[in-house]
Amino acid sequence: MESLKQRILEEGKNLGRGILKIDSVINHQVDASLMLEAGAEFARSFAGAKPTRVLTAEVSGIIPAMATAYAMGLPLVYARKHKPITMQEPVFVEFAPSHTKGGAVSLMVSPEFLAPGDRVLIIDDFLATGQTIAAMARIVENAGAEVVGIGTLIEKSFEGGRALLGSLNIPIVSLVIITEMRPDGTIIIKE
Amino acid sequence: MESLKQRILEEGKNLGRGILKIDSVINHQVDASLMLEAGAEFARSFAGAKPTRVLTAEVSGIIPAMATAYAMGLPLVYARKHKPITMQEPVFVEFAPSHTKGGAVSLMVSPEFLAPGDRVLIIDDFLATGQTIAAMARIVENAGAEVVGIGTLIEKSFEGGRALLGSLNIPIVSLVIITEMRPDGTIIIKE
Repeated sequence: MESLKQRILEEGKNLGRGILKIDSVINHQVDASLMLEAGAEFARSFAGAKPTRVLTAEVSGIIPAMATAYAMGLPLVYARKHKPITMQEPVFVEFAPSHTKGGAVSLMVSPEFLAPGDRVLIIDDFLATGQTIAAMARIVENAGAEVVGIGTLIEKSFEGGRALLGSLNIPIVSLVIITEMRPDGTIIIKE
Repeated sequence: MESLKQRILEEGKNLGRGILKIDSVINHQVDASLMLEAGAEFARSFAGAKPTRVLTAEVSGIIPAMATAYAMGLPLVYARKHKPITMQEPVFVEFAPSHTKGGAVSLMVSPEFLAPGDRVLIIDDFLATGQTIAAMARIVENAGAEVVGIGTLIEKSFEGGRALLGSLNIPIVSLVIITEMRPDGTIIIKE
C-alpha cells in the first residue's frame, strides 16, 4: 500500500532494536482515512476467504480491524487484555509475550462472540515476532472456529513472525513489509 | 439515534448497580457499520464547532472516535493508559477514577499531537460519572488547546456526569440517554 509506505518513510522513526515509532499515523494519533483505505485493501485481499468475523487484540489492532470489518460488512471482535466487569465467564484465554511492554499479556475472548464454524480473519497493526497473532489463532482453535486469513498493516520481516505463523498454513497479507531497520536510522521497505 | 437505542433495548443487559453490558455492539464485539453511523451523527452535531482534532481514551472510546474522525476528516488522538516504549516524554498526564476497574487510571497524551490553538472534540463510548472525560478536558487545557464539544454514544444520566462537566460550558451530545436502570432489569431510555 503505497500511501502507508510513504507515511512510514516520512514520519516513521527507527528507535533502534527494531522499534518503529509510527504514532503519528497508527498508535497514538490516527489517520482515520488512511486506516479506512487499509481496511478496504484487506477486504479485497481476503474476499475469497469468505470470513464471517474479524478478530484483533486491543489496543492498536482495533483501528485497522474496525476498518476491515466495516469494508467487509462483518462483526469485529477484539480480544480484551483486562477483564471488564461486564465480561461473563467462562472465556477463552491465551497468553502472549509482549514485545513492547515486557512480561506476558493475557488475551480474552468471550464464547458469546466466537462460535464453532466461524471463519475468522485476524487483523493487527504489526507483525513482528507473531506471538500475539499466534495467541489469537490458538483462541480461535480453542473455540472450534477456523482462521482463514491474517492481515497486518506493517510487517517487520526480520523478526520472524511469518515463519512462526507458517505452520498454520494460512494466507498472510502485510500492507507494508520492512526488511531492515539499520543502526543509522534508515528504514528499508520491500518494493 | 434510533438504531443504537433499539440495539440497547434488544441486546443490552442491566447487570445491576448501573452497569450496562452492551458488549455485543460496542465493548467486545463491535458493529462497525453502526459505529460509522454514530460517527456521521456526531459529525453533523459538531460541524458548527469547527473542531481540528478528535480526542478519546483507550480502549472502548477508540471506535466511536475513529468513526467521528473519519466522518469529519480530522486526525484522531487517543489518550494512552499505559506508556508504550515509543512514547516520547514529556507527556501530558491526568488521572481518572475508574468506574469499572477500581482505582485510578492514567491518561497520557503526547504534546506532539495536541497543540495550543487546537479545537478538540472529545468522543467516548459512555458518559457516566464524567470523570474520564473531565480528565481528558484537563489534558486539553494543560496543552493550551480548547474543548469545543463532547459526544458520547450512551449517557447514564443518573450518574451525574453531565452536571460534573457542566462547569466547562461546552455542548454535550449523547446519542442515547438512559435515565433509569431498574433492579428488575428494565432499562429506561429518554425519548
